[in-house]
Amino acid sequence: MTGTLHSLNAQREPSLDGMMALVAADMHGVNAVILERMQSKVALIPELAGHLIAGGGKRMRPMLTLASAALLGYPGTRHHKLAASVEFIHTATLLHDDVVDGSGMRRGKRTANLIWGNPASVLVGDFLFSRAFELMVEDGSLKVLRILSHASAVIAEGEVEQLTAQRQIDTGEDQYLTIISAKTAALFAAACRVAPVVAEASEDDELALECYGRNLGIAFQLTDDAIDYASDADTMGKGVGDDFRDGKMTLPVILAYARGREADRAFWRSAIRGERVSDGDLADAIRLLHSSGAIADTVERARQYARRAIDALARFPASKARAALAEAAEFAVARAY
Amino acid sequence: MTGTLHSLNAQREPSLDGMMALVAADMHGVNAVILERMQSKVALIPELAGHLIAGGGKRMRPMLTLASAALLGYPGTRHHKLAASVEFIHTATLLHDDVVDGSGMRRGKRTANLIWGNPASVLVGDFLFSRAFELMVEDGSLKVLRILSHASAVIAEGEVEQLTAQRQIDTGEDQYLTIISAKTAALFAAACRVAPVVAEASEDDELALECYGRNLGIAFQLTDDAIDYASDADTMGKGVGDDFRDGKMTLPVILAYARGREADRAFWRSAIRGERVSDGDLADAIRLLHSSGAIADTVERARQYARRAIDALARFPASKARAALAEAAEFAVARAY
Repeated sequence: MTGTLHSLNAQREPSLDGMMALVAADMHGVNAVILERMQSKVALIPELAGHLIAGGGKRMRPMLTLASAALLGYPGTRHHKLAASVEFIHTATLLHDDVVDGSGMRRGKRTANLIWGNPASVLVGDFLFSRAFELMVEDGSLKVLRILSHASAVIAEGEVEQLTAQRQIDTGEDQYLTIISAKTAALFAAACRVAPVVAEASEDDELALECYGRNLGIAFQLTDDAIDYASDADTMGKGVGDDFRDGKMTLPVILAYARGREADRAFWRSAIRGERVSDGDLADAIRLLHSSGAIADTVERARQYARRAIDALARFPASKARAALAEAAEFAVARAY
Repeated sequence: MTGTLHSLNAQREPSLDGMMALVAADMHGVNAVILERMQSKVALIPELAGHLIAGGGKRMRPMLTLASAALLGYPGTRHHKLAASVEFIHTATLLHDDVVDGSGMRRGKRTANLIWGNPASVLVGDFLFSRAFELMVEDGSLKVLRILSHASAVIAEGEVEQLTAQRQIDTGEDQYLTIISAKTAALFAAACRVAPVVAEASEDDELALECYGRNLGIAFQLTDDAIDYASDADTMGKGVGDDFRDGKMTLPVILAYARGREADRAFWRSAIRGERVSDGDLADAIRLLHSSGAIADTVERARQYARRAIDALARFPASKARAALAEAAEFAVARAY
């Protein structure tokens, strides 16, 4: 069975189409909650939040909550509010991330901080974060509240650690994994885990879905960090080389620096210090990342985490939902090609 | 009895000494929770949070939770975590406020954003906010969670509305009251209201303490906004005239603008647009604020809200706690002198 789960359908590229079809009806419900609860008499709030929320995100995390609930045959609608809550937490972190990084592009559009300024992005992020908690409280499960409030604290901790690692050439793979496990994987894991809680599934089902989400999240972030050095500028809807210019110690750079000869290592030291910001420098960096095998190995690491995610699904009987979740893990990595 | 509550002790200025003595033992417990729960393996978090949390704040909001519990004779310690949670929410909003305003001084010290940068202040604020919710979830009362998650959303809404009103000369007293009720009074009200919830007091006691906190919060903010134009630069531990230079439409300016002759109104229009930022301009503003009676009337408004706070206590039997809460309301306004 695990074999079946792992084998790609040779006829087509992995995509999120199966998952989107699976959760389409529930996603209408989630979108209704999102649209209703991002409203405020203060007009700037829905205006700014809507720019990001309506603006072309995949709704990956709420989709995972819905697909996980489908996997368990959950018949209710409690998870709509919780999936919306997860998306609000995610949106709040994106707003704050873009302020922290001074980003100008996100999902192929100008960022909110560029349009409305950093103060508005900080405060509307705070609003969405509070609103996320209100939604959870309305649901009323202390267990769900424990999962999501803990995930939120872990995310913030990961973001601060990432900030302190920025421009620090000595950041290693272990610390990098700690950071992405916190800033990215914790919310993926929590998004999946709340489904078995509302479905009143077993503790083992909870742990399996938590494990699926966590490994998927790591695979997703590793792939994003490889894509940031892709030569095709349109892949992510944001500028290629953002991490390079921000001096972020992502795995591609960590591997290339560890493997490089002294001249290459000197290049990375100056680049991470912020002394190499031209397009030519970025091209040099991309060349080194490929020649050292750093990009290929980052994607290969991502593939292993995706397999671990898929393996975590083995305890559940075969179903459309299980196939969709497995394909989502394949999709997470396939984006790198 | 109401009379007794209202009359100042002629022997001394109102102070928080009575309240501090009343809650001293409990405050040790709250401080222990605060110190323990602001820790993180990411060293920047306790470092930055400690700068603000250990740095000379009055702990006004947690003190209100403790004094409200004392008023009701609550014998337990559940409120320690909740008071810490309230202080974390407050600290998170201060960190974000200082980023939003670009402030350089707070409580007589350099602000965190000046020392560690805006990114760190945004992210550590997010961490403290998440930690606040974790503390509430550990307590386990959905009613408390409802009160504090709603207050958090209202605070953020008020902050965004304040941002949109900035440099808008047509902001009126009603909108100003809406803003300060949200950004300041909501947390004072919630801090007081959680005490009757954990003490399992009546709904009427809850509403009375909510009313006390809300009116106290408004009195507090009105007084702060008057003090921002005080001639004594040391009064607040931050620079006098910050609101003036930020183009904030606080009540003193709203009243002076409404009452001014055309030349004065032209002065205010250009000042709020940001065209009058010299010390001489600030001196002119302060002169206009006094000659129009705007400062005196702002403080008088504050006094009326403080009386409403004190009146809300009338249903509780006389006690040290009631006297301390009443004196805190007098203190809130007396700071203006």
